[in-house]
Order: sequence, then C-alpha cells, then structure tokens
Amino acid sequence: MPHIKLPEGLPGIRGPMAFRPETAAPLSELAEILLHHPNSLSAADRELIGTYVSSQNDCHYCQTSHGAIAACHLGGNEALVEDVKLDFERAAISEKLKALLAIAGKVQRGGKQVLPADVDRARRTGATDIEIHDTVLIAAAFCMFNRYVDGLATWTPQDLDSYRARAAKVAQDGYGSVLKDIKATR
Amino acid sequence: MPHIKLPEGLPGIRGPMAFRPETAAPLSELAEILLHHPNSLSAADRELIGTYVSSQNDCHYCQTSHGAIAACHLGGNEALVEDVKLDFERAAISEKLKALLAIAGKVQRGGKQVLPADVDRARRTGATDIEIHDTVLIAAAFCMFNRYVDGLATWTPQDLDSYRARAAKVAQDGYGSVLKDIKATR
Repeated sequence: MPHIKLPEGLPGIRGPMAFRPETAAPLSELAEILLHHPNSLSAADRELIGTYVSSQNDCHYCQTSHGAIAACHLGGNEALVEDVKLDFERAAISEKLKALLAIAGKVQRGGKQVLPADVDRARRTGATDIEIHDTVLIAAAFCMFNRYVDGLATWTPQDLDSYRARAAKVAQDGYGSVLKDIKATR
Repeated sequence: MPHIKLPEGLPGIRGPMAFRPETAAPLSELAEILLHHPNSLSAADRELIGTYVSSQNDCHYCQTSHGAIAACHLGGNEALVEDVKLDFERAAISEKLKALLAIAGKVQRGGKQVLPADVDRARRTGATDIEIHDTVLIAAAFCMFNRYVDGLATWTPQDLDSYRARAAKVAQDGYGSVLKDIKATR
C-alpha cells in the first residue's frame, strides 16, 4: 500500500505524478528529452541504460516498464533486455553501449565512482561528449525516478502483459503522452 | 578536470546545464517548484533536506551551495546547517523536520528503505501527504543532482564566499534565475 493517499488505478510513477501534477510536468519533460527525442544514441540504447540502472536499484516497476519499452525498440527482443540486466559485458550489444553501461553502473553507485578510465574506454568505442553527458544524466535521473517510485511504495503490478501493452504506446508516442493520460484521469 | 569539455567558469551543475540547455530547462523547473515555490514547508526546511541528502551523498558542490541557500533563509545561521548535516536528530529544528529528514535519509540509501513507521512518525508531528511526497521527491531529486555533478567531475570551487554570494541571489530570485544566467553566458 502506498505511504500516502495516491489516486487509484495508476501504477508506479503515474500515481505520484497524478497526485502532484506541478512536478509531473518537468519530470515528464526530462524523460521525453533524454529518452525519446532524436539523439545519436538509439532509443533502445537509452532505455537499456535506464532499465539497467533501475535493476541495480532493485526498482521492479521501473526496470519492468522501461525494459518493456526497450524491448519494443528492439523488435520485441525481451531476452536481450534480460541479458543486459544480468551481465551486460557478455550481452550481444555494441562495445560502445557496454562502455556507457559501465559508466551508468558507476553513477548508480555514486557520482565519484566514475573515473577517467571509464570515460576513456567510452571514447575509444566512439562515444562523444554529449553521449557521455546523456548517459550520466540518464543514470542519475533513474536514481531519482527509482527512489520516487519506491520511496512512496507505489502500486507495482506483477503481470508482464500490462507493461507490454503500455510500452508499445510510450515507445511510439513518448513521455508527453504519459502526462496527457494522467491529466485525462483527473 | 571535468570528464567532458564543459563551458569554463561555471561551477558545479551550471557547467553541464550550459552544455545541454535542453535538459537544463526541466531540471531548473523541478528545483524551482520543489525548493522555491510557495509550500507549507518553508524554503529553509526544503533546502536543509536537499543539503542533508547532498552531504550523505558526499557531493561537495551541492551540499555547500544549498547549505549556503538554507543559511540565507535562516538569517545567516550557518551553524544550524552544519548541525543538521552532522546529526539532525540533535539539531535545534522542529520534530516535524527531524521526521522528514529521517525519511530523506532513507530515500538517499534507497527507496525501499522508507518504512510505514517512518511515515507514521512524520504524520504524528503533523506532516501532510503532500509534505511527505515533496520530501521524498526532494531527496530523490538530490540523488540525481549529486550524481550529475560528481559523475561528470564538474568544477567545485573550495572558497565559501563565492557560494555565499550566489546563495543570496538564488534564495531571493529562485532557480529560474540560474537558467537565465546560464543563457546569458552562452
């Protein structure tokens, strides 16, 4: 049961976003820019970074919802998402994404964990400054989203199908649609 | 030295915000709403929550800059800010703020650390649902800001006076002014 009285029927972050629409607006905009706007990093890569950080933070809602969105961008390849969560260094992904996930994993443990050697590794695989910046901010933002979702003990559905249905919509329309849906329920 | 090439002369978060103004906009708006908009929690209380979380995350820039802003809101009482960072349970603050800081400290360690007993304690001191919500989101947001600032190894001035000068301006004008200043330097 959530720690505060949240609107019913809205899983995960959507409950507190409906409860406090003033803060929901910049949170959605941040997700939209980082995860859905055009970027030299693919939407799949960015969602995998968010999913991996969420799994390291043990946030069931975020790792399942963003894992399902990542899988949508990967043509339904849910097994690859699981491989990344389990051991990204051995997953069938690019060396660049491995280096960026290593940085994201450091950010999850604490900003000061990121060392010049981690950034050098990413550069050697072709990562640009803005890609390194976005990786750090995506990882940092998920450390916020995960704590927001779990710190309020929000409702976390356990069935995968509800996440899959919603993921298809977000993968297509982006995070602005999340805010519109929430407003429609109020 | 920062891990990526950031605009020079801008300490802490202001460097990456100038580097990536698209994401700076929602980050500033989030800080403005959570820390500076009218709220039943005083600006001093909210800045103390952010300062405490930043100190637990060992982020020198954030704990010093927000500590200085908190002190501005407290009529210059820098000693109280230090007391809160050191041991808030024994500091000269309200029982309600102690209970909210206890929740913030749990959020810093991980969202699932927040237990019904922590929320009950806050309620017994008069905390409302929205105050508990905002405490969780402020703590979560600082877990993002701290990682953003340190994960990119941004420039961290060591002299206190530069923080004090800037704090007076932010305490007065809010976080929208940060974004305006950054735009003016570009």
